[in-house]
Parts: sequence; C-alpha cells; structure tokens
Amino acid sequence: MPTQNPIFIPGPTNLPEAVRRALDVPMEDQRAPDFPDFTLPLFADLKRVFKTEAGEALIFPASGTGGWEAALTNTLSPGDKVLTSRFGQFSMLWADMCQRLGLEVITADVPWGEGVPLDKFAEILGADKGHEIKAVLACHNETATGVTSDIPGVRRVLDDAGHPALLFVDGVSSIASIDFRMDEWGVDCAVSGSQKGFMLPPGLALVAVSQRGLEAAKSAKLPRCYFDFEDMLKLNRTGFFPYTPAVGLMRGLRASLDLLLEEGLDNVFARHYRMAEGVRRAVAAWDMELVSAGPQWRSDTVSAIRVPEGGDATAVIAGAYHRYGLSLGTGLAELSGKVFRIGHLGSVTELMLISAIAGAEMAMRDAGIAVELGSGVAAAQSWYRQDSDTVAQAAE
Amino acid sequence: MPTQNPIFIPGPTNLPEAVRRALDVPMEDQRAPDFPDFTLPLFADLKRVFKTEAGEALIFPASGTGGWEAALTNTLSPGDKVLTSRFGQFSMLWADMCQRLGLEVITADVPWGEGVPLDKFAEILGADKGHEIKAVLACHNETATGVTSDIPGVRRVLDDAGHPALLFVDGVSSIASIDFRMDEWGVDCAVSGSQKGFMLPPGLALVAVSQRGLEAAKSAKLPRCYFDFEDMLKLNRTGFFPYTPAVGLMRGLRASLDLLLEEGLDNVFARHYRMAEGVRRAVAAWDMELVSAGPQWRSDTVSAIRVPEGGDATAVIAGAYHRYGLSLGTGLAELSGKVFRIGHLGSVTELMLISAIAGAEMAMRDAGIAVELGSGVAAAQSWYRQDSDTVAQAAE
Amino acid sequence: MPTQNPIFIPGPTNLPEAVRRALDVPMEDQRAPDFPDFTLPLFADLKRVFKTEAGEALIFPASGTGGWEAALTNTLSPGDKVLTSRFGQFSMLWADMCQRLGLEVITADVPWGEGVPLDKFAEILGADKGHEIKAVLACHNETATGVTSDIPGVRRVLDDAGHPALLFVDGVSSIASIDFRMDEWGVDCAVSGSQKGFMLPPGLALVAVSQRGLEAAKSAKLPRCYFDFEDMLKLNRTGFFPYTPAVGLMRGLRASLDLLLEEGLDNVFARHYRMAEGVRRAVAAWDMELVSAGPQWRSDTVSAIRVPEGGDATAVIAGAYHRYGLSLGTGLAELSGKVFRIGHLGSVTELMLISAIAGAEMAMRDAGIAVELGSGVAAAQSWYRQDSDTVAQAAE
Amino acid sequence: MPTQNPIFIPGPTNLPEAVRRALDVPMEDQRAPDFPDFTLPLFADLKRVFKTEAGEALIFPASGTGGWEAALTNTLSPGDKVLTSRFGQFSMLWADMCQRLGLEVITADVPWGEGVPLDKFAEILGADKGHEIKAVLACHNETATGVTSDIPGVRRVLDDAGHPALLFVDGVSSIASIDFRMDEWGVDCAVSGSQKGFMLPPGLALVAVSQRGLEAAKSAKLPRCYFDFEDMLKLNRTGFFPYTPAVGLMRGLRASLDLLLEEGLDNVFARHYRMAEGVRRAVAAWDMELVSAGPQWRSDTVSAIRVPEGGDATAVIAGAYHRYGLSLGTGLAELSGKVFRIGHLGSVTELMLISAIAGAEMAMRDAGIAVELGSGVAAAQSWYRQDSDTVAQAAE
Repeated sequence: MPTQNPIFIPGPTNLPEAVRRALDVPMEDQRAPDFPDFTLPLFADLKRVFKTEAGEALIFPASGTGGWEAALTNTLSPGDKVLTSRFGQFSMLWADMCQRLGLEVITADVPWGEGVPLDKFAEILGADKGHEIKAVLACHNETATGVTSDIPGVRRVLDDAGHPALLFVDGVSSIASIDFRMDEWGVDCAVSGSQKGFMLPPGLALVAVSQRGLEAAKSAKLPRCYFDFEDMLKLNRTGFFPYTPAVGLMRGLRASLDLLLEEGLDNVFARHYRMAEGVRRAVAAWDMELVSAGPQWRSDTVSAIRVPEGGDATAVIAGAYHRYGLSLGTGLAELSGKVFRIGHLGSVTELMLISAIAGAEMAMRDAGIAVELGSGVAAAQSWYRQDSDTVAQAAE
Repeated sequence: MPTQNPIFIPGPTNLPEAVRRALDVPMEDQRAPDFPDFTLPLFADLKRVFKTEAGEALIFPASGTGGWEAALTNTLSPGDKVLTSRFGQFSMLWADMCQRLGLEVITADVPWGEGVPLDKFAEILGADKGHEIKAVLACHNETATGVTSDIPGVRRVLDDAGHPALLFVDGVSSIASIDFRMDEWGVDCAVSGSQKGFMLPPGLALVAVSQRGLEAAKSAKLPRCYFDFEDMLKLNRTGFFPYTPAVGLMRGLRASLDLLLEEGLDNVFARHYRMAEGVRRAVAAWDMELVSAGPQWRSDTVSAIRVPEGGDATAVIAGAYHRYGLSLGTGLAELSGKVFRIGHLGSVTELMLISAIAGAEMAMRDAGIAVELGSGVAAAQSWYRQDSDTVAQAAE
Repeated sequence: MPTQNPIFIPGPTNLPEAVRRALDVPMEDQRAPDFPDFTLPLFADLKRVFKTEAGEALIFPASGTGGWEAALTNTLSPGDKVLTSRFGQFSMLWADMCQRLGLEVITADVPWGEGVPLDKFAEILGADKGHEIKAVLACHNETATGVTSDIPGVRRVLDDAGHPALLFVDGVSSIASIDFRMDEWGVDCAVSGSQKGFMLPPGLALVAVSQRGLEAAKSAKLPRCYFDFEDMLKLNRTGFFPYTPAVGLMRGLRASLDLLLEEGLDNVFARHYRMAEGVRRAVAAWDMELVSAGPQWRSDTVSAIRVPEGGDATAVIAGAYHRYGLSLGTGLAELSGKVFRIGHLGSVTELMLISAIAGAEMAMRDAGIAVELGSGVAAAQSWYRQDSDTVAQAAE
Repeated sequence: MPTQNPIFIPGPTNLPEAVRRALDVPMEDQRAPDFPDFTLPLFADLKRVFKTEAGEALIFPASGTGGWEAALTNTLSPGDKVLTSRFGQFSMLWADMCQRLGLEVITADVPWGEGVPLDKFAEILGADKGHEIKAVLACHNETATGVTSDIPGVRRVLDDAGHPALLFVDGVSSIASIDFRMDEWGVDCAVSGSQKGFMLPPGLALVAVSQRGLEAAKSAKLPRCYFDFEDMLKLNRTGFFPYTPAVGLMRGLRASLDLLLEEGLDNVFARHYRMAEGVRRAVAAWDMELVSAGPQWRSDTVSAIRVPEGGDATAVIAGAYHRYGLSLGTGLAELSGKVFRIGHLGSVTELMLISAIAGAEMAMRDAGIAVELGSGVAAAQSWYRQDSDTVAQAAE
C-alpha cells in the first residue's frame, strides 16, 4: 500500500486542497477574449506578494533556475562584472551560471552556514570606484543550508557605497514564506518558483523586475529570447503571452495567491516562524546542530540538521523514506552524508511537522544515532502548545 | 489557512490517492452495454473480501445502517424473535432498529467494553428448544468502544446448541480491516459500509448474504422494496441494477478492491494490527485505559481511550480540533465526555498515527490532563521501529 | 482510446466542472463541531430549490427510489389507499412499490405518452366521500416517456373535491430543471435525486416534506427506520445526522446549489426549455414523433423519440454507443426497441446537444432508418441561433 | 452557468480523462531514491514516440518555444548560418529567434499555405559548397496555416547535396499526431511541447537530439545554461535532474505515453487523419477554402479555414466564443480576420468535431456569412459513418 504521508523536502511543498482542486481543470484557450480577465489580476496580485508597485511581475513556464537566467540575460552584457557570495549549493550554482553565460564573477565566499557577508560586500563595492560591478547577486534563503541572508543589509551596503549596481535576489525558497519587500529594499530583480512558498507544483518561474532593471534591459547584450522580459511584458500588458503559457499551473497560482492574500502576508510569515521554531526546538532537544551558524541566519522555511560525528545522514534519509515513507531533504554537495533537511514551508501544520520530527528520530535510531525517541517531539509539542498570539509576540 | 491534516475518526477514513482519483470520474450510463464488464467483476471481488463463495454480495446506495435494515427486512417477519447483545452505541442502535421494525428482541447485554457474551448466548439458545429465535445478531466490531467480538465463537455456540437461527454480523468497522470469513464462520448476512476499511466516502452499504439467508427471504414478511435482495440480485446477475446505482462510488470501490486484493487480505489485517498496537502502546505509556475490558476484546480498527477521572474528553476533542486541526472520535452515548477515540483503520501510516498521538497529548495537556508530552509518541515509535516481519510474527 | 464524449441519458447527467471539483475532497469528520456551519445552510438552500419555506428538506444516502419509499413509509399505514396513475416505467414502479409495502393502490392509468389524468382523478376523488384515499401520487416528469404532468392541476382537483389526501410528487427528473413549487402547489412530499437536475453523481435522495406530511408521520404505521423522517430531522436540526451521511456527495450538492441559485431558478428553467426545444425541432425535422402525446405533455428534461415503423431503436442505441461513443437513453418496458431518449437536462450546452442529434442521425442511418444527415442538426442550429432573450419570450 | 464544451484550438488540446487524473497528484520528492524508477522508463518511452533509438529525449519545464531555443543554443555558435523557410507565424518566429540569438538566417520563404520548398532548399544547399550553413530548420506542421511539410524530403535534399548541416524540426503540433521518424529521417533535433498531441497542459518542452547533435554541442558557443543538454543528460542518466523538474506534468506525461503506445502510433496517426478529413469535408461542403495550398500540404492536426471575401473571421471567432462557448483558433499575423482554425488533434472524437463544425456554421451565419446550416455537419457525418477500417485503407 503506497504511503499517504506528506513530504518534508524544501520544495516541492505539499499542495493545499484549494490549490490542488484549482489545478484540476480542463484546458482552455489562452487566446480567448476574456483570458485577460484572468491574467491581469493575476499579475497584479503576484506583484502584491513580491511587494512591488513600481516593478513588473512575470510568469515563465520554467523552474526557478530559468528565473535566474532571465534575471541575468535581460540586464547584463557579456563580460559584465557581478558580485556574489557562495555559501551553499544554490548560491554556488547561480554564480556558476553567471560564468557560463560569460559574465565575470567576483565572489565573496563565506563558510556554508553563514549568509551574505555585508562587510565584505561593503569593502568590495567601496573599492569599485569605477562602478564596474553591474549587479550584486544575493541568495535570500539558501535552501541547502537553511540560511537566511539580510537583504535590506545588502541594500544599505550599496547605498552607503553610493554604488549603482543592480540588486538581484534569489527568493526561490523565501518569497511568500519569509518577509520580502521588493520596492522597499530596492531589489531590481527577484526570482522565485512555484513549488515552494507558492505551494504549487514545479513549473513556473515567478520573476519581478524593477523599472531600473527594465531600463538596463534596453542595453543588455546577452542573447535571450525565451526569457526576454520585453517580449513578455509587451504581450502581458494586453493579458496575453508571446508563447503558450502554463495555463494549468496559472489556475493553481490564482488559488495560491487567494490563500496567501486572504491570510495576509504578515500572518503567513508569522506562521512560518511558528512552524520553523518547533523544528528548531526539536533539534535543540536532540542536542544536535543546525548548519546555520547562528540565530541571525536561521531560516524559517528549511532547517539543515547536522547528524552527530560518525552518523550517516544518507542512511537516515534512505531509512526514513523506505521504512516510514518519510521524505526528508538530502545534504547537497559538501553537506552530503552530513545533514538531513526538514522543509517547513508552505502548507504544513504542527502535527505534520511533529510526524516528520518523530520519523527523523526513528530513522536516526535505526541508523545508529543515539537520539532519545520522543525527545524532539516533546520539545516541538511544548512550543506548538503556545497559542499563536504568544508566538507572534515572541517573533517580534 | 485550512488544515491539511488527515482525520482519525473511525470512519469516514482517509482516502488513498488511488481511490481518490478513481472517484473523480465523469458520469457514465448505468445501462450501457458494457456496464456489466465493470460490475460483474466488482461483485466477484467484493465477495472475495467478504470471503464468501457460496453467498452473494450486494451494493446499495445507503449507509451501513441501511445495510442493517436490508439484512433484517429481507429475512424476517413481523414478530420474529432475534437474539442480540448490546455493548455500545452501534449494537444498541441495531437492536433498536429491530424493535422499530416490529421484531421481538432478546438481549443479552454486557458492560460496554466487553463484546458478545458467548456463554449467555449459549444459555439462551440452548433454552430455545422451539427455535423461536430466528436470527442472532452480532456486532463484530463495536465502533463506539473499540471492542472486537468473537464471531467464530458465536457460530460455535449456535452449532453446539444445534440451533438453526440465522447469524447476522455487523461488520461495518471490521470487514476489510480485521479477519472476517463469511463462509467459514457460517455467517448468513454480513453488513459493511464504504467509509471504513474500504477507504471510500460514505454512501454505499456493502452486504453479503448466504444461500440460507436468501432462502429465508422467500418467506420473510417484513415489507421491503428499496432494500429488497431479490430485486437487486435479479438485475445484478445481468450486471445491472433495479434503480440508479451510485456509479461514482462504485468506481472508487473498484480501486479499493484492487488495493486490498493486491496487498492481500492477510497483509491488510497484519498492517491493521501493527498500526493499532502503536496506539495501544501510547495509551499504556500514558498510564490510561482503553474502554475495551481486556486484551481479548481489543479492536485493531479503533481505540476508545478513557481520560483520567476528572478529565473532560469533550474538551480534549474540541481543543484538538480547533487548536491543532486534529479530528478525534467522540465518546458516544454513555461514554460522552469520558473517552476519545482514535480510528486506526484504512489508509493510515505510522507517522500519521504518531501525529494523532502527539496531538492528543497536546490537547490533553491543554485540557488539564497530566500526561507527559512525547511519552505516548515514544512508545509508539519504539513499536513502529520494529520491522513488519517482527510484528507479523508477534501477531500470530 | 476511450471516448471523451458527454452523456445524453436522462440521468446521471454531466457534472459541471465546479461540481466535479467540489466532489474531489478528502474525508472529513461528520461530527466536527463546525460541521453544522456546512449543513444548516445546505438544508436551507435545498429548501429554496424545492420552493418550500414551511416544509423541511432531507438528504438520504440513497437513490430516488429510496426517496419514494421514504415518502410512503413515513406517512401511511398498511392497507391505506393511494391514488395514482401509471403512464411510464417510473410511475409504474412507484405504484408497484406501494403494493409491495402493503398499500391499496387505485390506479387511473392512461396511455404512455400522456400524464396525470386530471379528469379521472377528479372523478375518483369526488366519489371518495369517506376520504379513504390517504395520498395521491403524481409523477411530475415521467422519465421513460418524456412527459410532464400538471401538478398545480392535481392540487386544483384535490381542492375542488375538498379532499384531504396528501399529495406526493415524484420530481426526480423535474426538480431543479422544470418549474416546481412545493408550497404554492400544496405538495406534501416531493422526491428528487442527486443525478438529474442537481447535476451530481447518483447517491442522494433529496426529499421535502410539508408540515401536513410530518403530522401524518405521527400516526403512520408502516415500519421504517433508515428512512425515518423524525430521526433524521431531529438530528438535522442540530446540523448532524443519525447515521453517517454521504459527505462527499453533500460537498458536491453545495456546489450544485450555488450554481443553481446563482443562475436563478427561473433562468435554469428557461435554459432547459431552450435546450429541449432544439431537440424537439430536430425530431420534427426528421419527421419523427415524440412519445409525448401532445405539446402540453412535452418534457423539458428528456425527449423520448419513436423510431419509424420497422426501425430498431435498440440497434440505434447500440450503434451510437459502440461506433460514436454516444450514450442515448433506452426505451424502457413497453417502449423497448421502439424509442430512444435524449436527456437534455442539467449541464448541457447547445453544441453538446447538437453532437447528440448528429450522432443519433448517424446511428439511425447505420441502422437503416431513412433520416437525412444534418437535417435535425440544421433545425436545432436555427433554434439555437436565436438569442436567449427571444427564446425566453417565446417560452412565455 | 459556465460552458462545458471542449476546446478546438490547435493546442492546448483537451485532456483525456486518464491524463487528467494522472495530473491530480500530491507533490513528491524529485530526489527520492526510487524516483528513477519513474523517470528512466519515461525517457525511454518518450524516445519511442519520437522514434529514436540512437538519440536522447529531454524534458524541460518550458513551452515549445523553449525547446526551439534549446535546439539552437546547444548546437550553434554566434554568427553560424542557418537555412529556414517562413510560411506562417511559427516558422517566422523560429527564424526570428535565430536572428535574436545572433545567428545568420538564410530564408527561402514561400507563400503562407505552402510548406518547406524542397527545390529552393536544394538550390541553396547545393550552392553552399563551403558548408557554411550549419543547420537547416524545418517546421513540420505550421500551426498557423494548417500546413504539413515533407521532412523526409528535406533529408533527401540534404543527402543529395551531400550537405552536412544539422536538421532541426519543429514538431510541436505534429509529433504524437502525425507520422514522425527521427532516426529514419535523420533529424538531429526535434522539438515538441506537452499541450498538443501529447494531450497535456502546456509547460513541458519535449526535445530529442541525435548523437550528431550532441557532438555539435561540444563546440557550440552560444551561451546556455537552463537549456543545456549536457547538464540535463548527465543527471537524467541517473534518473534525476539538474534543477527541479515539473513533476506534476511528468506524471501526466506517463499517462499520455501509456495511451499513445497502447493505441499504437500508427493507429494514432490514422485516427488523426480520420478526424481531420471530416473537418475538411465540411469545409468543402461549405464551398470554402483551406489556407493550405493543396492536398499535399494539408495538416491532420489543424485546419485553417478562410472565410469568404467580405467575411470577418474575427467576428466569427468572437461570436462562437461568446454565444456558443466554442473556442476556435484565431488567424495569426497576416491571416488575422481572414481565417479561423479548428484544431483536430489529441483527444477529440467525431461527435466533438461535429459540434465544432456546427458551431462554426452558426457563428458564420451570425456574422453574415452565407453558409447553409447543417451542410458541413452532413458532409462530416457521411465521412465519419465510414468505419475505421475503410478510412484507414483510404489513408494509405
């Protein structure tokens, strides 16, 4: 009998029932006269989630990786310098993409577990008197390590240096789950995907671009066509698309935006904190460590948990999957075998997370790791017994 | 945001994904020439789950209560005597139905927590030299108390007394979850419903009748029409129905039977034991009591758990629902306020049950009951960490 | 490759997408504290569709046939006289049920193709000075013949005779499609089913009962339990049920009522007239006859169409199904082989009906019936090209 | 009440029920240990539909346009010459993409209504003694005009000229509907999308590449990352992906491939011919013209139909949509206002197409075009009445 358990990887995330049903639609004509009645409010509401009024939101049939490529190819030219920091699999991959697309990458790397190093950025940007750096790339939430970076801090560093570089943010595993403010933080291009906080299947790259970003597009010389902002926006303004959009997923996105906006983004963020903290309490009760190097880095969407010295995280993950039908996130790249991850974003409940914690305890014991059964569960239970108001206050 | 938790009431039970998808069908013509290609194997496979070759299986658009009525009205006449035992809400209601339909009911009641009293039955049947008792009614699994009765024992008692009464079994919350053998146990009419072990939405009464039962129908004088076996079977033999059948639910039943028969009924039963025992270990760890009065009565489909003296089970259940989105079963009739129930039948996993145990712990603490958080969870985890083979052996 | 065509039998009918999605839900707790928030408005809105304020609406897990049984067993006693008229398979079956339940049936039959004979009813009721007739049964829409009877006329006949008999109406294939007014027409019990105008899968008997009907229930002596009004209403008033309700179908009913009430019942009725008339125009263009004996009897939910002398309707229906994936309704009982039926109720469109008309033309030709291809289609097209306003006026 | 009609645009196409249900799945872990058990056979079966054994099949979260970009950027370098022919909106757009990506485009255009001009291609390729043309692009089925080109002919022309250029084929609206043979025809890169013959929602670019294409990728210098074949194939070989794949759509693809391979591709193609020819017969009966300039160009997946001089195709399409809920394809670019299109690919039946033909007749009459109601329908009916075997023979 196949398992009926939810999944606890940091994306794709579990589909809310309303989203699941919204996805289950017959096909429709993407050139129908009333199609804009559906799409124009969709763009408008997507902008609300990105918290941009001045910018534009775009929906590509693609993964978040496609969104990264869109951000770069639309705004930069071959040989342009970009500044970034690598501290996990995904920040590493984005930097790698830059190189492959012919950009010059300046990296200010930090150990995995930390996030964007504001001081190093300040130093490099301050030294770049000629403003050769055209864009700064920041991974808001590094999914591989469970680390959240300080994006307003990056903006401050840019402003303090009086540096005109564009600011690009990878918000794949943050936007719609963790506080993100495109306009207020002066972000020029923000990239997300459907399968994380938007609680949809994978298949949509959700991108927002500022007016500065669009201005940059005019002179950007990297070749592009599929991901071209201008083509897309020209048609989008009429409610249509330059090529067949992923209408099924977009019907799901409508339901997702309805859920998010009805709950209120602040409540969504508070809920994610509440959910995440239960997992962190469990980790503390196990006397184990998060990859994130300090409280300031802790992600409310995913926790990367180090198994004790001598433990085999790969065995924990495989055992959890095969014996208990529990999907945990794997350790990626240098963290392989050393960590397992629990995704606590999107449509999860206290009881769902408790089941993941309990399953992790069982799988750790099966893999020979000395964790007391029920200990992490009890810590999470204590936390979750507090009412939401109390938790919300604690979050402030 | 609406909860995404599974439910833990003893029916309806959680839909397996394969069943859920099978239910999602466009409407079809129940008089189509090839409709029998669907229905005839459906009846055949339903008989396999009831473990009857000699009898017939029927599918009524109704609840299990309708199945009770079908059993009685097809086989008995006004004033006929029936023997039964009341030890819970559902055995009580079936006896009540007998009276309302004009039957004379002889009851051999026992305290709630016990099941069919074989000795009392033996005594009464032995004394009924004139064989005035036309039918013996036995509730195989009393859903209100979590008590499983000894049906082969009832057959033995009838045989020992040389008594020709028909044997009717309420298998609503047992069949497809707990060992049941219609032919081998000499059951004349067995009643189940779609929303328990069959893992479907409510709406189908699933009934099996022996040849003796059908013979009795010929002289039975209780008025009946909707639930008439003869009308139904006459058309069923051709693959059709005397009135519009619940085709949507029947498509789901096809998927359900496929799952059950593919897993193998013995494996299904072993799995239910494995799941149930985890809950019982948790209750023991809490130092609390089941309603079932001893190990011989313990049900593998539902556990009715007494809250300690002074505790308010109603507050536990309401709190679980409102605070944690956890649906527990309520205490019915005389058990109201004294017990909560955890359904562990159908499509549930170890991790799902652990989440229910954890939620019950939290809700009990919220309601002022002194239970140690994580204690029941840890006991269940220990049990579930044993591999299935070990558990299967233990079950023998 | 399986066919993707809609069906054109007079029930089950095609599911609207909104209903289909509403049906696709996880299971829920029918004893949850907030379950009444769902059920109480459901009863209230169901009453609006029956157009009763004074009466009560009930939802049984059953087919419409179960609804018939509910109406009879709750209000009558063994030996009671009922008056009815048989003019088709379903009015015949209801009369048959009366006999089997021990009632004395007075029939005023008319040829199949006509409906309730008001003059004969007047005569019989007028002669029944002792008011021995306890109930008058009228089939509002005989699904087998496509005949709609004059229910207000039946009420008038009763009133003119000053006769106190209860008035029961079989509205299975009329309610929610054809004008029906429970209170205004003085109907005491109206029976419908989920799979016709309510556009749901089969499995719910939808019944409404007047206060007079409920009063009669107090002294009615026919045995009943599953279909007992009092049990059901007692619990329904609190939002709950005496046994597990068909929650899945009820979630679909919510969507169905929303669609019906949002469109407005008068618009629903006008739409059914518009759809039906297109089929009738096609039949006229074919120079063929409806079973209904005159315009006053024509049903807006189903047309029973006589094939010409020498034609084999069974071959037409089988050919349509096997060659074109077209489900037409069969001729029932004495109409077998002589008619095919097109259901034009529920969620059908002009183009869907045209496809059924076209398929019937092809299947008739295949079966050797000399009908001109496209002739019926053209007549229907002409009709449907008129705008809805024009049609609505024509309907007045 | 929303319409329940299928759509008749040339993509997205109507979802078969089996595909629709397969799409309705909870999210899963794309890094689960048993994920390759799902993906490896999926790639293998996708290759069967492309009819390639030597090549590789790739699945990108993208539209078909993304597939075009993948073909170009993986195999070519800036300034490379490509030969193509423009004869419709989509062949035009692909040529445009080439230019935007920095390729030099040699075009051998023909009037819209014709397809790839083999003679012109032969001339140009023959004159290219230096083999500066690196790739030949051919649109197998131009969706805008309903024209199918002769791909084996293009291969012959290349072979006759002894020209080593790569052969790229846009098979978006042909593959899985019209005969296509990657290996036999020597195609180096074939591009399709999920929403046409694969009967899925839009969102997957389905691409196949030959070993020569992969060899070319090693020296190709167009920047690429998201659409990089090598990255993708490296991971695909293990059953995984370099970034999150569109798992939901891929589950649908599994069902789609099952349907296609079970029916047999030859049967699929014959069915498309059968369906298409009915539409063409209707057009002939209307005395109207297809855009395709002759029988050799006629597409079995879409027909572009010219309205008579003075007619307004835009009004026909708008009227069809608003009055009858009928989605027809619009005229694109220079065909705007002059044609409407009927898509007859994927999961359509005879009766569905007849409903589209009938609706088109009504909408044309509403728009003042003198077409006889039912005339096209009758012609299609005559054709569809022939049995499939007869049609299959006629197709040979």
